Amino acid sequence: MPFDIETPAVLVDLDIAEANIDRFQSYCSSHGIRCRPHIKTHKLPFLARRQVAAGAVGITCQKISEAEAMIADGGLEDVLLTYNVVGQAKLARLVGLARKVRLSVVADSEAVVRGLSGAFAGTGVTLAVLVECDTGAHRCGVMTPEAARDLAIVIDRSAGLTFGGLMTYPPVGAARAVENFMVSARDLCAAAGITVPVISSGGAPDMWTAHLSPAVSEYRSGTYVYNDRSLVARKVCGWDDCALTVLATVVSTPEPARAVIDAGTKILTSDLLGLAGYGHVLGRPDLRIDQLSEEHGRITADGPTGLSVGDQIRIVPNHACVVSNMVDSLHTLRDGRPAGVVAVAGRGRLV
Amino acid sequence: MPFDIETPAVLVDLDIAEANIDRFQSYCSSHGIRCRPHIKTHKLPFLARRQVAAGAVGITCQKISEAEAMIADGGLEDVLLTYNVVGQAKLARLVGLARKVRLSVVADSEAVVRGLSGAFAGTGVTLAVLVECDTGAHRCGVMTPEAARDLAIVIDRSAGLTFGGLMTYPPVGAARAVENFMVSARDLCAAAGITVPVISSGGAPDMWTAHLSPAVSEYRSGTYVYNDRSLVARKVCGWDDCALTVLATVVSTPEPARAVIDAGTKILTSDLLGLAGYGHVLGRPDLRIDQLSEEHGRITADGPTGLSVGDQIRIVPNHACVVSNMVDSLHTLRDGRPAGVVAVAGRGRLV
Repeated sequence: MPFDIETPAVLVDLDIAEANIDRFQSYCSSHGIRCRPHIKTHKLPFLARRQVAAGAVGITCQKISEAEAMIADGGLEDVLLTYNVVGQAKLARLVGLARKVRLSVVADSEAVVRGLSGAFAGTGVTLAVLVECDTGAHRCGVMTPEAARDLAIVIDRSAGLTFGGLMTYPPVGAARAVENFMVSARDLCAAAGITVPVISSGGAPDMWTAHLSPAVSEYRSGTYVYNDRSLVARKVCGWDDCALTVLATVVSTPEPARAVIDAGTKILTSDLLGLAGYGHVLGRPDLRIDQLSEEHGRITADGPTGLSVGDQIRIVPNHACVVSNMVDSLHTLRDGRPAGVVAVAGRGRLV
Repeated sequence: MPFDIETPAVLVDLDIAEANIDRFQSYCSSHGIRCRPHIKTHKLPFLARRQVAAGAVGITCQKISEAEAMIADGGLEDVLLTYNVVGQAKLARLVGLARKVRLSVVADSEAVVRGLSGAFAGTGVTLAVLVECDTGAHRCGVMTPEAARDLAIVIDRSAGLTFGGLMTYPPVGAARAVENFMVSARDLCAAAGITVPVISSGGAPDMWTAHLSPAVSEYRSGTYVYNDRSLVARKVCGWDDCALTVLATVVSTPEPARAVIDAGTKILTSDLLGLAGYGHVLGRPDLRIDQLSEEHGRITADGPTGLSVGDQIRIVPNHACVVSNMVDSLHTLRDGRPAGVVAVAGRGRLV
């Protein structure tokens, strides 16, 4: 029976999402790892509160505006912002945020630390700053354990700041590199008289092997709440564990082996994450979503698609997080049926 | 001098945009082609009105909600919706739209035409329906001139509808294929006693050679208002003609040849359009934006980037249209300086 929902639309099966939350929390708890979910995947305060209720120590946000949106309703008191905050306007907002919740941020340079210290010194609020470490992803992060120690010393001596620990966003499969870097940096800090309160790592693809880096005390995963096609491809989960789907309608069937749906990059995005095609049609592994334009998705098959104009399909996207960011609101499901519409409070929070 | 704007942000230089509008309108006027801009690029009612004031016959929208947002302020009276409208909820909205503006839509199957006729018959409003033709893009569209004629006959005989002409969204460089298909379909329609009032083609890459398909009486281009890196790469325009840029701040410089900016896929998107990298840094052709994650962009160079934490850069994105869709508001520029903030009224209009 088709859903009585205008398409394209994002559906989130809350039964699946809650099971995902509880399963990863159990894993973390059983290994003594602090679970700190990244809310970028759902951008929904009520699901963040559900994660904390399940046992998470707090949440991870990437941007200040995102954190502001998440805490607006209350019920969330511990936020790690895994981003270098730069610029006077953002630093002023950061101080405001720190007055409302237990806040920590990261830094990977003295320039960023100077900005943070300048903003917090004299405010009466002390900001915890973790050193971001590059364990192989080559995005942000200091590049050696020695540089991590040196920046920890700078933070420790900076007015308005306290050293909050070490943080990394490693590449997939880098448990050994993470362990080596973090143990070395921790020991160097200890030799300099500095205690490392937290060692935080993250990434959904390696979430079930977080315990293989024993030095890691805290783990940040985002995508696990919904899962997606990229995680199924990596065997991190199965299709039944995918909570977020895109509901689409067939609008054209120009020839038997081709159909066109009303979902394009404006809802599925162009993210490939190394995969071929733009999503998995639930229950139809024979169909390929081989081309997207902004408002159209093209479906092809080796034989007839069997699809007709007006048919609905559900798609597990390649990357769930970016899909959440494309919609102002989404439809929740309970027992597989529509249960309500919720605004995506954290959508489009860029700064 | 840096802009006093929180980053990342979208900047639109109105002087450049207006020059782009006037230049393409002049081209169309000089060739006797009706110009019907696609508003998906800017999603801004005031720029759509500027296009009509310059001489456009009306606007093109892709989705009903987009058209609703565009006409809300008035001043736009002719809308072509180049989409197969399917489903009762959308058809009801379509009737409402047709009561407010001179509306036309497309169809490429009897199933779609039946839906349109069922919605419009008896309302007192007649909807013009163009037949969408596949001239090689293999997305939507009837696949032969004979099928176009057959569907034109169906439309012509359907209650509540009138046949509005032929429409295509061709692949790049398909002027001859468009001409052959359209002339043949037009002649077949004529032989069946049906006049083809409009032959509408489109696509920004071929906008300056629209006159090479003499049968085409109307041309739809979207991207020309802003231009982007994909059109510079195709030599359709130069960097000085690019009206939309993304303003970003350097947040990390982990090593001399690498910098990280605060613009990722949440503003630039993952659209490659066949290009390497995710945008062009204005004034710095030596820099590559070689990797994006949601909130980070990585810049690399063969030598030192020369960038420092806090520096601002401006990026011409690969694809301007999709960037407009990522922001709730953007900053306009006049004489190269910030002139105001405008809401992107058509952003996120999915249905």
